[in-house]
Amino acid sequence: MEKISEFTVRRLSNYYRILLDLEKRGIPTVSSQRLAELGGITSAQVRKDLSYFGNFGTRGLGYSVTELKAAIVQILGLNHKWDMVLFGAGSLGQALFFHQGFREDGFYFKHVFDVDPAKVGTKWNDVEIIHQRGAEEMLRRQPVQIGVVATPPEAAHDVVDMLVRVGIKGILNFAPTQLTVPEGIWLRNVNLAVALESLSFYLSM
Amino acid sequence: MEKISEFTVRRLSNYYRILLDLEKRGIPTVSSQRLAELGGITSAQVRKDLSYFGNFGTRGLGYSVTELKAAIVQILGLNHKWDMVLFGAGSLGQALFFHQGFREDGFYFKHVFDVDPAKVGTKWNDVEIIHQRGAEEMLRRQPVQIGVVATPPEAAHDVVDMLVRVGIKGILNFAPTQLTVPEGIWLRNVNLAVALESLSFYLSM
Repeated sequence: MEKISEFTVRRLSNYYRILLDLEKRGIPTVSSQRLAELGGITSAQVRKDLSYFGNFGTRGLGYSVTELKAAIVQILGLNHKWDMVLFGAGSLGQALFFHQGFREDGFYFKHVFDVDPAKVGTKWNDVEIIHQRGAEEMLRRQPVQIGVVATPPEAAHDVVDMLVRVGIKGILNFAPTQLTVPEGIWLRNVNLAVALESLSFYLSM
Repeated sequence: MEKISEFTVRRLSNYYRILLDLEKRGIPTVSSQRLAELGGITSAQVRKDLSYFGNFGTRGLGYSVTELKAAIVQILGLNHKWDMVLFGAGSLGQALFFHQGFREDGFYFKHVFDVDPAKVGTKWNDVEIIHQRGAEEMLRRQPVQIGVVATPPEAAHDVVDMLVRVGIKGILNFAPTQLTVPEGIWLRNVNLAVALESLSFYLSM
């Protein structure tokens, strides 16, 4: 399992969304060719990606949409609930907090931290925005699995160091800064410009 | 060029960021091994990705950081200015509008559209938020290259159809809905849950 690249995992997320859509449209089976077509990749890639995780599908019949979706849900760890904390209650933090898709996948924000006195004490749904100085103690008492960083870049390093200290193993960083974490911590940097760069690449051709 | 996959382009964006960082740290050359290490991939992949675009680097010496960065800037189309419009002035739209990284890459929002009377007429920096009903005419008069969709999912289809009608060739969609566009239009869907699914995958291992 440790050899699975981030790109494979990203394609699994893509297959998952395609299968959700096929299921919604009442389509019972899908071939690797069709899945490849919908995913914009080759069928050899689809078969290779899925082969890491077991034997899916029947030669000539393709994959059962419901069974393959259930398998990917389990592979991606979406068959249980994930508790998260959010750092940064700015516009990006707010957009992430209210993003419907996270809850649908089982990702829940338990706490929101910020340093702005105008925001501290206010509520988003039933979650109170708490001053960041209380975060470390709170996270030791009430551990969560994932920390989401939507602070200004200059604040992100201290937040991530603290998340590592309290034992959080998964960090999703939206702050545009290079962060490093010790071995054994999974850090994902989300760079919003990357998708735009893909557009400008194709538009420049 | 038409065979370049989105995954290759995504890795180019990644190399670009690594090279920016190396340059900032005053490091003049980098080997494909080191670039691979920093990017979390294999050196064979680095060499393959770069071979699509020409001959970079010198055997035994590696790549010149500044030259390779300049080449990738050109490949990604970041050597000129891109005009964009934003649909949806909610929290996500706001986060995108004020995202520093876009401007640094040459991506500028020229107009912002929304349907909320409380937002229409207000300004972000020197850009006025305009009612969406005026968008089609405005975009015919003042064409832009990229449309960014941060509306609720149920509004995204009409916005995208309109963007296609006025001749916009690049669309970045953040609304969590399946959209289709005609051949010749580049649509990128950004799903914020994908990065979380990568974390839950590795945390589940």
